[in-house]
Amino acid sequence: MPRTTTWVTVPEASDFPITNLPYGICCVKEACRTDGDGGRRRIGVAIGDQILDLSAVAARGLIDEPSQMLRAESLNEFLASGRSEWDRVRTRITELLSENSYRGAVEKMLIAQSDAELCLPFEVADYVDFYASIDHASNVGALFRPDSPALPPNWRHLPIGYHGRAGTVVVSGSEVVRPSGQRKPPEAEAPTYGPSQRLDIEAEVGFVVGTPSVRGTQVGIGDVAEHVFGVVLVNDWSARDIQAWEYVPLGPFLGKSFATTISPWVVPLAALKAARVAGPAQDPQPLPYLRRAEDWGLDLDIEVECNGTVVSRPPFRSMYWTADQQLAHLTVNGASLRTGDLFASGTVSGPDPGQRGSFLELSWSGRDPITLDDGSTRTFLEDGDTVTLRASAPGLDGTRIGFGACTGTVRPAVTD
Amino acid sequence: MPRTTTWVTVPEASDFPITNLPYGICCVKEACRTDGDGGRRRIGVAIGDQILDLSAVAARGLIDEPSQMLRAESLNEFLASGRSEWDRVRTRITELLSENSYRGAVEKMLIAQSDAELCLPFEVADYVDFYASIDHASNVGALFRPDSPALPPNWRHLPIGYHGRAGTVVVSGSEVVRPSGQRKPPEAEAPTYGPSQRLDIEAEVGFVVGTPSVRGTQVGIGDVAEHVFGVVLVNDWSARDIQAWEYVPLGPFLGKSFATTISPWVVPLAALKAARVAGPAQDPQPLPYLRRAEDWGLDLDIEVECNGTVVSRPPFRSMYWTADQQLAHLTVNGASLRTGDLFASGTVSGPDPGQRGSFLELSWSGRDPITLDDGSTRTFLEDGDTVTLRASAPGLDGTRIGFGACTGTVRPAVTD
Repeated sequence: MPRTTTWVTVPEASDFPITNLPYGICCVKEACRTDGDGGRRRIGVAIGDQILDLSAVAARGLIDEPSQMLRAESLNEFLASGRSEWDRVRTRITELLSENSYRGAVEKMLIAQSDAELCLPFEVADYVDFYASIDHASNVGALFRPDSPALPPNWRHLPIGYHGRAGTVVVSGSEVVRPSGQRKPPEAEAPTYGPSQRLDIEAEVGFVVGTPSVRGTQVGIGDVAEHVFGVVLVNDWSARDIQAWEYVPLGPFLGKSFATTISPWVVPLAALKAARVAGPAQDPQPLPYLRRAEDWGLDLDIEVECNGTVVSRPPFRSMYWTADQQLAHLTVNGASLRTGDLFASGTVSGPDPGQRGSFLELSWSGRDPITLDDGSTRTFLEDGDTVTLRASAPGLDGTRIGFGACTGTVRPAVTD
Repeated sequence: MPRTTTWVTVPEASDFPITNLPYGICCVKEACRTDGDGGRRRIGVAIGDQILDLSAVAARGLIDEPSQMLRAESLNEFLASGRSEWDRVRTRITELLSENSYRGAVEKMLIAQSDAELCLPFEVADYVDFYASIDHASNVGALFRPDSPALPPNWRHLPIGYHGRAGTVVVSGSEVVRPSGQRKPPEAEAPTYGPSQRLDIEAEVGFVVGTPSVRGTQVGIGDVAEHVFGVVLVNDWSARDIQAWEYVPLGPFLGKSFATTISPWVVPLAALKAARVAGPAQDPQPLPYLRRAEDWGLDLDIEVECNGTVVSRPPFRSMYWTADQQLAHLTVNGASLRTGDLFASGTVSGPDPGQRGSFLELSWSGRDPITLDDGSTRTFLEDGDTVTLRASAPGLDGTRIGFGACTGTVRPAVTD
């Protein structure tokens, strides 16, 4: 039986065909609980508009598990189990959902997505954000540092990155309170305190580390698939006015640390095999530790939606630095990886104006307002605005791999 | 009976009089174990050259504990229990160690420090590093950015900080492998790859968060003692050549992320009451959310020792930005705190050359080598060098509060 069909009814436009099978953490919404157990967090696998309750599958002995990693309340233990376990579990879930003989037993372990609440899928260890789009870096350079070359001198030699705040990585749907802080327009004499007036998003793609590494050793560029489990969408909310005033010389801090939203489903690398493409040519050729051994570009189309209007379609395949290069760079100094580390691509922007992954770029720092379908215009985000990221990638056998929505709504600043 | 005496024999120069009582995580060294339980990690409290085994105290019912937080393998649960629990436990331990009536029962719960192995005392959630010494910032500005004013324009308006790598925070005694990476001297045309040739330390003081806060809310400047449990010494190892090439525009990354060493004992804020002093005057007056309500400067004398030679004595009391200001700033944008968050002061340097907290400053970027007691000289660190930080603060009743050693030895780079 072909493994790209399933006995589950999958709507045609679904993000979750059987070739995807992303993992998340869910519980049954309070109003939909039929037993005392429904509120418990469990690992789920998305299929069509259902979720396979993996804790039930494991509890009924339909899948072998060393320890009880599939019955945990976060993905971390499964993430830590390594590539061969990831492959084994994926193969078995595919069997269960494709072979009709399992239907009777497994069907009752499906939860409707509409009945489920999705939680942060894993405990984030360290969060690193890169800056890997040449178009984004050039745009931001032109806007933030108009008197210098758009690309810093190191940009083409290494994937620039920095650490973000892991404790404020939240799951899609979490509210985002407009941050307050210091900002100083260039013409002002002193900074003032108040809510950010330039609240923005960054549309990004994040990589989730499963297998840890040992401090003092390097992860080679060929080893990305041994360490990275899968991929999420990331909205790295940014307060541009706070960021502009604070970021020299030690980098972004409060301009970013108030919230970073990730999509609830971790799409395994195994689901993205058909999406792998060569990264763009690099000039100059990077140092040997950064030279690509395999194709780790991803043919992933992102959509940025604001209040229902698609405002941008950033193409991930154009990212200058690819995930294998980022991982090799991140560990070249012997920094260790932990299960749950998240490293994100940085804002995904393509060369065209309609492909920019931030309002900073889309509105060219406020000069060119964007018009939404309701006729209103935006330069930066207003209170009440909802931003949703979505993405598509080619899957096996002509299927389409989606990520679910990565969404958040802006709430007014807390006033004191 | 006065609470500043104890029935434990405390050597006169000890870091750990009964007015200190810092917490750590220890196990009995393999060679010293007399029972099967010795290898288990447990919470210990340092007193003289002994460690009070708090798990034994709790197991014998000599201290009340809600849940089994004092029998855990890390301090996090105790840290999360909050100020009133911290005070209650401290009061009780003081009783047990000062009243002779407890001696018979408690004496057998002491472990000699020489028999114990000390582990990372808490699971680090997010690690933030500030840049709060005006002398350090001025020195580094002059060295890294000779063509700009030594202090960035924002420096006197906000405590500049950035996120570091929590996963490579290690306990005193952990080895530090010399990091490799990209570096490019200004005169070179392209970067090269290799072991850092400018490996350095940063002598810092770190604050450990106990009580978490809610995302979207601010922690007021008056609330530091509600959230911060205690203090550790921090050596933020730094590869200056890697850092100089990478840090513009998003801040230090691989130049710092290979290792950060902390002292094994968390000294409670309660032990540092006599050390609290007013922070230095600030000009301009900071914005209201950063205005000090209490004295949170700390009269703490640090010693930096390299291979047995004291090379510097940085005075912590001169730090421009104090911990209360750092905490208020860190959360002003609604970023939440988690139990186990660590925020460090940044390099502690005083105004005199003998008070500089890094080799970058001590050797003035390599121009002025330092002579060690064995006659050898250093600009930056060599393989095999051992750096140890120590510190002293005034304690109650004329006692002296110490932190134990924060030490690490440089191992040669891994060659491939």
